[in-house]
Amino acid sequence: MVYLDNAATTKVRQEAVDAAVNAMEKRYGNPSSLHRFGLEAENIVTAARKIIAKTLGCTPAELFFTSGATESSNLAILGGTQAMHRRGNRVVTTTVEHPATGHPFDELEKQGLEVIRISPRENGKFAPEDFVEAVNDQTILVSCMYVNNETGLILPIDEIGKKIKRKSPNLLFHVDAVQAFGKLPFQVGRMPVDMMSISGHKIYAPKGIGALYLKKGVRVLPRNLGGGQEKGLRSGTESVPMIAGFGTAIQAIAPSIRRNLSYYQELNHYLREQLQGISGIVWNSQPDDAPYICNFSVLGIRSEIMLHFLEQKEIYVSSGSACSKGAHSGVLSELGCSDQQVDSALRISFSYETTKQDLDCLIAGLQEGMATLARQK
Amino acid sequence: MVYLDNAATTKVRQEAVDAAVNAMEKRYGNPSSLHRFGLEAENIVTAARKIIAKTLGCTPAELFFTSGATESSNLAILGGTQAMHRRGNRVVTTTVEHPATGHPFDELEKQGLEVIRISPRENGKFAPEDFVEAVNDQTILVSCMYVNNETGLILPIDEIGKKIKRKSPNLLFHVDAVQAFGKLPFQVGRMPVDMMSISGHKIYAPKGIGALYLKKGVRVLPRNLGGGQEKGLRSGTESVPMIAGFGTAIQAIAPSIRRNLSYYQELNHYLREQLQGISGIVWNSQPDDAPYICNFSVLGIRSEIMLHFLEQKEIYVSSGSACSKGAHSGVLSELGCSDQQVDSALRISFSYETTKQDLDCLIAGLQEGMATLARQK
Repeated sequence: MVYLDNAATTKVRQEAVDAAVNAMEKRYGNPSSLHRFGLEAENIVTAARKIIAKTLGCTPAELFFTSGATESSNLAILGGTQAMHRRGNRVVTTTVEHPATGHPFDELEKQGLEVIRISPRENGKFAPEDFVEAVNDQTILVSCMYVNNETGLILPIDEIGKKIKRKSPNLLFHVDAVQAFGKLPFQVGRMPVDMMSISGHKIYAPKGIGALYLKKGVRVLPRNLGGGQEKGLRSGTESVPMIAGFGTAIQAIAPSIRRNLSYYQELNHYLREQLQGISGIVWNSQPDDAPYICNFSVLGIRSEIMLHFLEQKEIYVSSGSACSKGAHSGVLSELGCSDQQVDSALRISFSYETTKQDLDCLIAGLQEGMATLARQK
Repeated sequence: MVYLDNAATTKVRQEAVDAAVNAMEKRYGNPSSLHRFGLEAENIVTAARKIIAKTLGCTPAELFFTSGATESSNLAILGGTQAMHRRGNRVVTTTVEHPATGHPFDELEKQGLEVIRISPRENGKFAPEDFVEAVNDQTILVSCMYVNNETGLILPIDEIGKKIKRKSPNLLFHVDAVQAFGKLPFQVGRMPVDMMSISGHKIYAPKGIGALYLKKGVRVLPRNLGGGQEKGLRSGTESVPMIAGFGTAIQAIAPSIRRNLSYYQELNHYLREQLQGISGIVWNSQPDDAPYICNFSVLGIRSEIMLHFLEQKEIYVSSGSACSKGAHSGVLSELGCSDQQVDSALRISFSYETTKQDLDCLIAGLQEGMATLARQK
């Protein structure tokens, strides 16, 4: 099997599986229980929070576990605007966000807030100046993804954050870093960012766990009310097995983030080189996008057709974002792709286990697909 | 180790651990991916939904996975009132709810809704008539737990549901069945209930998974917006490992719910008999409460003191609800316990693995504790 859909989700690392199993079989106490067996479960949560916070570049007190990045982004965006609602009525985001950001903004619009959605410039890049122009003294929240999940486009978070905060120091700046955390080297504590959503299952932890970074002093209103876990921000018994898996996966990946990134660059170059000779293939990702996401189109063959052709060879790729179940999200068009490119786009995404041999299989599969499917037309 | 805190959380069954591991190691696709590897993950979710729905007594289409019962209850109560807000302004609950219900009602009160909180009668029981009296044509939602988590009190859900719906057919009736599902035999589809919250980790599934039953036709507004998973009601990549564990745990427990209940009754009788001879022990649970939760007080010895004494002997019990981290929830007082009883209350809760030998250890521990701690005073 050649699994090249790691931007959709990843195989859980063995260490992370083992940590989850340990929490299910042996340390199964409730972290809220007063007895020592509960404390042992709490210790697992504390240790995971520490290692994830360290890798993210914040203090453990600034990190809150959630059921995943969708919940994190909803909490940041809806809970953040609720906490800030007396200060203004305008919120700002981009046109290329994941639905976990996009739909909360649609909800804010329904509630009567003024939503500004910034598009990329003609070159497919975002200009920080456009964000500066969009914010005014009524702006309470700006949300912007770090790495686009469909093409790997890296948004200039640092520059955007610095400039909008200079103009409007009170707004909250939220970053969806799902496709960046554990893959690009950064330290959130040194960035002009108030809130950051991260996910476990994109980086070898199980599905069903994520976290929200909240810079010290930033206040959002909780959306899951109950037993007061996560300092009251997110009630519900902690998913100790998932948290253990998350912490262990991050511990395993943290020392090799830079090394992996170089490796992804190498794989990316290799794939570009190998595909260069094949006519009919057009890249949708830019050379300076995050190298672990490669989006290109096989012109004339619809994404789903090629996807299912490759699937027969146990080569798994994506036709876009997994979350949109094959429906076009509109992101590629926003980034300047033609309708023909959009209809035939494929997304290849790497893990640290991806090899050049995997890419060779993909390339052979693509070539065979192009020959076979073209004949069928 | 003698673990008698199963109302706080349970050890994950081996079958459930294995199912979660399989989903993490082998079937790790994203259910939203279009390729077969994604479909295989979706199949796991579908199978789990089917078995849990069957056990709960509803159709798979009526069951929505969440990160746990806290999320389920928040979704039902806050999402349900939001969907119904044009129909009225009154909501009704009880004074003995878990915080996952209690706090959403506090939030509704802040938002300006009229909240009626019904107390038990003097005998510590709830009278359906009191619910009937509380509902009027402005009542949009009633929420009531099935089995109280501190004492095992069984609330007359069926009768309450029938009577309030006769008086006010349009209201939504939500039931927190966390301490009932998988333990008491019932079929929600035959009950006058619109929404029901259930949890995995109280019945041998991992922490971090739950579900909300929504009777066909019942509409609540989603609170996690994004990729549209769970038919748009609860976005976010499905936690396939947790869902697999949940389904497998339920599959394992379903055939033995009645048998286990008889067994719990036997254990309960045994414990009551054995403790009868010991002066200074007063029961806070009633004989007709759910038999798997036993709440009693060792008068004169504070709960925490006895809990930590027992913990030294690796006997784990609770001083109340795990969720309140030792703080008194007020539930025992509501149910008619004196302050002295409240201060010295212990909660013992069984799993299918609990034995009479475990209870013998507990009884010996209690007696030793009473002797030792009394001397220290």
